[in-house]
Amino acid sequence: MSAPSAIAPFTGVPALLDDLRREAPEIEVRESSSETAVFAFDAGTAPRRGGPALDGPTVAFPATVGDVQQLVRLAARHGVSVVPRGAGTGLSGGATAQPDQLVISTDRLDRIVEVSPADEVAVVEPGVLNAALNERLAPLGLFYAPDPASWRISTIGGNIATNAGGLRCAKYGVTRESVLALDVVLADGSLVSVGHRSIKGVTGLDLVSLFVGSEGVLGIVVGATVRIRPLPVARRTLTAFFDSTDAGAAAIGAITASRVRPSVIEFLDEITLDGIDAAQGSGLSARGAALLLIELDGFGIDEQTAELTTALVAAGARVEVENDADAEVLWELRRSGRRFDAGSWFAGGDVAVPKSRIAELFAGFPAIAARFGVSVSAVAHAGDGNLHPVISLPIPAGADPAVVPPAVHDASDAVVRAALAVGGTVSGEHGIGTVKRALAAEELTVRVREAQLAVKNALDPAGLFNPGKAL
Amino acid sequence: MSAPSAIAPFTGVPALLDDLRREAPEIEVRESSSETAVFAFDAGTAPRRGGPALDGPTVAFPATVGDVQQLVRLAARHGVSVVPRGAGTGLSGGATAQPDQLVISTDRLDRIVEVSPADEVAVVEPGVLNAALNERLAPLGLFYAPDPASWRISTIGGNIATNAGGLRCAKYGVTRESVLALDVVLADGSLVSVGHRSIKGVTGLDLVSLFVGSEGVLGIVVGATVRIRPLPVARRTLTAFFDSTDAGAAAIGAITASRVRPSVIEFLDEITLDGIDAAQGSGLSARGAALLLIELDGFGIDEQTAELTTALVAAGARVEVENDADAEVLWELRRSGRRFDAGSWFAGGDVAVPKSRIAELFAGFPAIAARFGVSVSAVAHAGDGNLHPVISLPIPAGADPAVVPPAVHDASDAVVRAALAVGGTVSGEHGIGTVKRALAAEELTVRVREAQLAVKNALDPAGLFNPGKAL
Repeated sequence: MSAPSAIAPFTGVPALLDDLRREAPEIEVRESSSETAVFAFDAGTAPRRGGPALDGPTVAFPATVGDVQQLVRLAARHGVSVVPRGAGTGLSGGATAQPDQLVISTDRLDRIVEVSPADEVAVVEPGVLNAALNERLAPLGLFYAPDPASWRISTIGGNIATNAGGLRCAKYGVTRESVLALDVVLADGSLVSVGHRSIKGVTGLDLVSLFVGSEGVLGIVVGATVRIRPLPVARRTLTAFFDSTDAGAAAIGAITASRVRPSVIEFLDEITLDGIDAAQGSGLSARGAALLLIELDGFGIDEQTAELTTALVAAGARVEVENDADAEVLWELRRSGRRFDAGSWFAGGDVAVPKSRIAELFAGFPAIAARFGVSVSAVAHAGDGNLHPVISLPIPAGADPAVVPPAVHDASDAVVRAALAVGGTVSGEHGIGTVKRALAAEELTVRVREAQLAVKNALDPAGLFNPGKAL
Repeated sequence: MSAPSAIAPFTGVPALLDDLRREAPEIEVRESSSETAVFAFDAGTAPRRGGPALDGPTVAFPATVGDVQQLVRLAARHGVSVVPRGAGTGLSGGATAQPDQLVISTDRLDRIVEVSPADEVAVVEPGVLNAALNERLAPLGLFYAPDPASWRISTIGGNIATNAGGLRCAKYGVTRESVLALDVVLADGSLVSVGHRSIKGVTGLDLVSLFVGSEGVLGIVVGATVRIRPLPVARRTLTAFFDSTDAGAAAIGAITASRVRPSVIEFLDEITLDGIDAAQGSGLSARGAALLLIELDGFGIDEQTAELTTALVAAGARVEVENDADAEVLWELRRSGRRFDAGSWFAGGDVAVPKSRIAELFAGFPAIAARFGVSVSAVAHAGDGNLHPVISLPIPAGADPAVVPPAVHDASDAVVRAALAVGGTVSGEHGIGTVKRALAAEELTVRVREAQLAVKNALDPAGLFNPGKAL
């Protein structure tokens, strides 16, 4: 794959803008300047403090599908590469752009076109927030299942680009399992509709699944038909506290061995519980050294509770059913309790491993921490083996907070390699973007990367879309 | 896409066989002859009676992954195109081969390599029968969800090639939702492993989903890591009989509007019930003119039964919970009750439509029947909008049974076009193969077909794999 600017002579953007103002003056554009610097970053790559006032890319805000097609054609004409962008909440650098690139923002494409309870589908534009769709669906007794932690602020289009996961995936699947059909603008500016409004459909190669998770390198999603579901008849939150991280991690296997499949199984280790308590003033660590925070849903909630409680108690847990108010607090602590305070350096992660190896990965953290002189902890979407490790290191007095010591990133890489060593993957749900390209190359063989590139080149022979990302 | 023999001079096979005997004499091969004629057909394209003794293709039976790689390399060397084949139970001609082609059968690749309850995965070779995997899993309290009607005789590899559906898909997803990782031999003979043993994983483009349902045009699946699940704590069969096909079809919407999601919802119309009774001596039509045959599973089975019964009764149904013995008979009647007697011509189908349009499709059958002078009926996997229509016409005395009148196929095409007209697709789960290529071209735009071909050509530039199929 070409480097970011390989197809884009820097002079391309001014000529593109000239044509754009003549041919489509109604499309809002912000020219490259320090004011667009935010588009050079995403939530995972933004500098922690102000930093120098870089020039960002040129950014266009199309309001219609036709606008997107026109922008893509103009970009192709002038050799300007295109970075599709949703809300910029990604964590792997997938939606970040250089000054000589054109960002196509989906901000204005934010209509919920249709909700069809009878077909169990919703049709949305890509800029619709995940939360906005669920707000529309809730009064109808329906929901859209994929729930990345960013669901309040991330877009369906961005969720599709990264095949976003979330908390409920083990039961309801990741974004791919909820996308039935897509409208996509290809690199020649043509618009294609792929997939089906029916729940099933096999008509040649599955381009829908190919576009989902493709991080903007194959085309720009401008419309999506997604599957919606009835809200469960009941939801119940259980806590299972353990005396140690090891005991809690081992108990994940007890859930797998039961016949209960919770909608959410979150595992928080000892360092994570301490960190949340320190940041939020909560008292989790007084209840135990590690926590499995579980949501059950659906019919037979009492039967489910009984069977799961038996399994967890046998594994050494103290199990409680939480009331609604306490449950809400607990889930909020889980989603946003880990504050990255200004007094430490941090590196986050996103590995996934076979379920039986989760405990092994946690058991290896102290050795990695000792080797690099850092703190290593994680929360895990335990139902699907997806861990979000956090490496941290207190900033010594007088040190420059902007200069993160290599030990922090080296420890983070060591966790990723530990995941690979037990048959895991370098990214469970955040994607490769720019941040994980080197690690992806450790996971994938040359022949697999060649095959991925061949598919990319087949659909985008000029390398117009999001060069330097994902592959 | 090239025609079947475009890359394969007929002389290619003898030279290939010479090399094969020299380089890999241990690989079992049957040369092209009338004895391999069965490989010129699948279950959907086989002649109803003996027919002329055609010469079939050359067929190889590799016993190892290395054998498959060697066969592919030899085929590429000699310009002989390759048709991968499982059990040959497909219905769209996807695994059928010409005399100048090489069939690579997965018959000998039939090992269940591993079952890991802790990881919720099984690792299988492609020739493993769907039923054989489930027989291995049942004593462990586990199952593999995809259940095409052919599950007793079809292979996991064939199920993957067609992204096979089945009865339980509405709740558990189609084959794609159960495949985590694949080992695939590519057109250059190289072996790649794609996907993850973890439940989640996003590492570049999703080649697993691309290979699933690709009907053998991209590569040969030689290994699969599939997701397995705990057997439900309870299963229960309900019958809902209605006074008319229309009333029954309309009641499908009542299930959708409830919060119950059955594992199976099969709809059998009046003509289907009469046909089953005539073929099997059963008494279904005495109980009603149309039947929703429903399986509930999981926790809270009494709550589920109560809520669903209320919804169905309000929609005009007579609902009964069936005992285990009766349920077994009913499911067997559903799966194999429709015998295609020698006294009629038949054409089968496999369309899918948005769920809300199922009733409309059934309502249109009488007009199509009248227009073409045939009988039109269907069973439907109602949970996902997938209908299997049957067109039939009694063979008049003295007519040649082998010469099917155009009206039969024209009526079948009319049903497909009716499905397209309501936003449906030409194939819900059987695939395109050779049989539905013309109809697929009515559904897909030129640009979509170009994109599919570009992906095909990217992975198989010489058109080695299964030319003339699917695309």
